[in-house]
Amino acid sequence: MNNQTLETLIREELARARADADSVPDNMVLPLAKQVAEAVEAEAKRIGVNAVVALSDRAARPVLVHVMEDAYIASYDVALQKAFTVVALKMSTMDLKPLAQPGGSLYGIQFTNDCHIVIFGGGEPLKVGSRVIGGLGVSGGSEEQDAHLAAFGANAFASLVKHA
Amino acid sequence: MNNQTLETLIREELARARADADSVPDNMVLPLAKQVAEAVEAEAKRIGVNAVVALSDRAARPVLVHVMEDAYIASYDVALQKAFTVVALKMSTMDLKPLAQPGGSLYGIQFTNDCHIVIFGGGEPLKVGSRVIGGLGVSGGSEEQDAHLAAFGANAFASLVKHA
Amino acid sequence: MNNQTLETLIREELARARADADSVPDNMVLPLAKQVAEAVEAEAKRIGVNAVVALSDRAARPVLVHVMEDAYIASYDVALQKAFTVVALKMSTMDLKPLAQPGGSLYGIQFTNDCHIVIFGGGEPLKVGSRVIGGLGVSGGSEEQDAHLAAFGANAFASLVKHA
Amino acid sequence: MNNQTLETLIREELARARADADSVPDNMVLPLAKQVAEAVEAEAKRIGVNAVVALSDRAARPVLVHVMEDAYIASYDVALQKAFTVVALKMSTMDLKPLAQPGGSLYGIQFTNDCHIVIFGGGEPLKVGSRVIGGLGVSGGSEEQDAHLAAFGANAFASLVKHA
Repeated sequence: MNNQTLETLIREELARARADADSVPDNMVLPLAKQVAEAVEAEAKRIGVNAVVALSDRAARPVLVHVMEDAYIASYDVALQKAFTVVALKMSTMDLKPLAQPGGSLYGIQFTNDCHIVIFGGGEPLKVGSRVIGGLGVSGGSEEQDAHLAAFGANAFASLVKHA
Repeated sequence: MNNQTLETLIREELARARADADSVPDNMVLPLAKQVAEAVEAEAKRIGVNAVVALSDRAARPVLVHVMEDAYIASYDVALQKAFTVVALKMSTMDLKPLAQPGGSLYGIQFTNDCHIVIFGGGEPLKVGSRVIGGLGVSGGSEEQDAHLAAFGANAFASLVKHA
Repeated sequence: MNNQTLETLIREELARARADADSVPDNMVLPLAKQVAEAVEAEAKRIGVNAVVALSDRAARPVLVHVMEDAYIASYDVALQKAFTVVALKMSTMDLKPLAQPGGSLYGIQFTNDCHIVIFGGGEPLKVGSRVIGGLGVSGGSEEQDAHLAAFGANAFASLVKHA
Repeated sequence: MNNQTLETLIREELARARADADSVPDNMVLPLAKQVAEAVEAEAKRIGVNAVVALSDRAARPVLVHVMEDAYIASYDVALQKAFTVVALKMSTMDLKPLAQPGGSLYGIQFTNDCHIVIFGGGEPLKVGSRVIGGLGVSGGSEEQDAHLAAFGANAFASLVKHA
């Protein structure tokens, strides 16, 4: 193997490594958010829920909000703020719930941050490895349904990122 | 032509009229909003603008918000509130602009409604006939670019509705 | 001892008393706030917490806010408002916690003051003698960790003031 | 040159490339923010201004706020929102100023975004190449003084990043 062949091989290898690194997203962007929303909305239809679906980026800023027909008007703020909460606290809203009950270690967190912290199910942080790169908030059904839809969306996100 | 034949004909005619009426939307809904947003985002890419695109329904409530990668953070509120403004006042934000300047007939409107009224270009009401059934707000480029994108989206909406 | 000697002695004594009084701060100021923050941030690093550290003055107005890398986004408001709370109520947020639970004597305080009162651990008033001259708020870890860091900062403050 | 020597050389080269990439910050972080603030505060002292200095990250979220003794109480919000504005609009507040005057293309922008957009001098975006990685807001003196201090801080940032 001469030096030129070697150089070519190394360049190819480096290009491949760089491409691999690039293909794993480090932040939520609109095309990915649309795919996650599509999955959640299909599942929402299947179970008969008119949902609001919101996705935020790693800075907890909104990337996408979709309001299905006949969703609760109140669900707009709830979904948006669930998507904020899960990035701002790096935690599912369902996990936050017990901590924020009277007597809990974070009771009162629902009033700080201009009341933008939601403390019931339906919000999931979206992670690549251990890093939160975005958030998903769903509102429109019962807490159980919203939590199901958020978990469904988080799974869809995991599959999309794996096969990116 | 006997009575039964006549009745059949009338029934058919009525069904056709109802179907026609049904196919013309009387409110913005998510599937239609997605199509309008898709058109605006493609045009935004073409002219090199990272836009936020927002659509509201006939009650001026948001149906869809999309944030393209690297859009101005400030554009989120601006696009959303343009989509509100155009339904709330049944007027393009460009038409509102001169009225809201100091000395204009509506000067001060930008401070009412919790400052949710936007008075520069980039917002278009979406009409079926003379009825406003939704609104489009775009923010991310110069005022000229945002106004172009909003007009582009309003045209896309008109075509979609005509061929619905 | 003639009159002139006496006058000299008295002047010296008064100057010394004034210097002593001057060296004891009666309000939080930026250089002191930086020293307290430095101490808290070093301890936060040691225990592996990405904290937001906030210091307020005796008027409960912010003097310094520092956001360590990768801190919770929600921690900004929480730390800032802990630093407000402890001066505004002249009380540690941990001491306030039981009083603000449902049934407690101050239940509801978390909704007054535009929701700027925080009722869980991590905030300490900073006193010179019995006088509150500033406040420290820390957010970023568990309640126990935040309370530890706030107590650590209050101790650092006490040492700094004693040796001023 | 045998294979092992070559492997060593390649590893060294890759490590160097990685270190180079790492040394150019892609986001504002606290240690860097402290250095910029230190420079601005020294200059503020020199020209006799009691300033509030605020730095935000690339998501327009605050990283540091310092309030010099006897600064205007109003300067806290102004400095903080200048640091927000320059990232949210990727523009100096001085450049925004003419656009936001009555008749300007962005007149009204000062009322959108919950009135968080500041339209007078004293805010500078902080760039690495063409990318905004943070923002600096200064308030406390005349507009000319604030603009001078913000420009001074932006220069200090540029030097710090170059020699990182």
